[in-house]
Amino acid sequence: MVYEMAHISVQAGKNAEFEAAVAQALPLFHRARGCTAVELQRSVEEPNQYVLVVQWDTLEDHMIHFRESADFQTWRGLVGPYFEKPPVVGHTQVVVK
Amino acid sequence: MVYEMAHISVQAGKNAEFEAAVAQALPLFHRARGCTAVELQRSVEEPNQYVLVVQWDTLEDHMIHFRESADFQTWRGLVGPYFEKPPVVGHTQVVVK
Repeated sequence: MVYEMAHISVQAGKNAEFEAAVAQALPLFHRARGCTAVELQRSVEEPNQYVLVVQWDTLEDHMIHFRESADFQTWRGLVGPYFEKPPVVGHTQVVVK
Repeated sequence: MVYEMAHISVQAGKNAEFEAAVAQALPLFHRARGCTAVELQRSVEEPNQYVLVVQWDTLEDHMIHFRESADFQTWRGLVGPYFEKPPVVGHTQVVVK
């Protein structure tokens, strides 16, 4: 299992629209191959900063199967208009729990 | 519920020692007031970068009750020697799920 951690900066004043767009887009993740969970987290200290945390079975499920899908284009179409700048995306794996 | 997200850079070659120290320190979190989960994640792209993700009932449970405890000093004593630089710590809350 890998986590996708997408750090997203949202334009000032666009929080409600952005969060609604993510809620609308959830089914795209729920039906994606290898996606087992998704949640949007908002920073307490910097309220225009978000982290989209997505659990994928494998890195390829995210980077190939999802990124190259029509659903990824739909996702970006829904949320992209609210981005302040391109998201910074990385992946992590649990090593101690 | 808030997540503590502590971004930790570990000195080159110290990964195994750092991860062992975190494993050793887990009981400090398990007994902390308001702490409901803790896990250490390691970056896939940058293997010396980690995220310690801790679930707290409230911000105060982390920032006051834990940070001002003797257990926090013990935690820093265990893992601090492996830090490359001071951790960057923030908090998030789930807004869409």
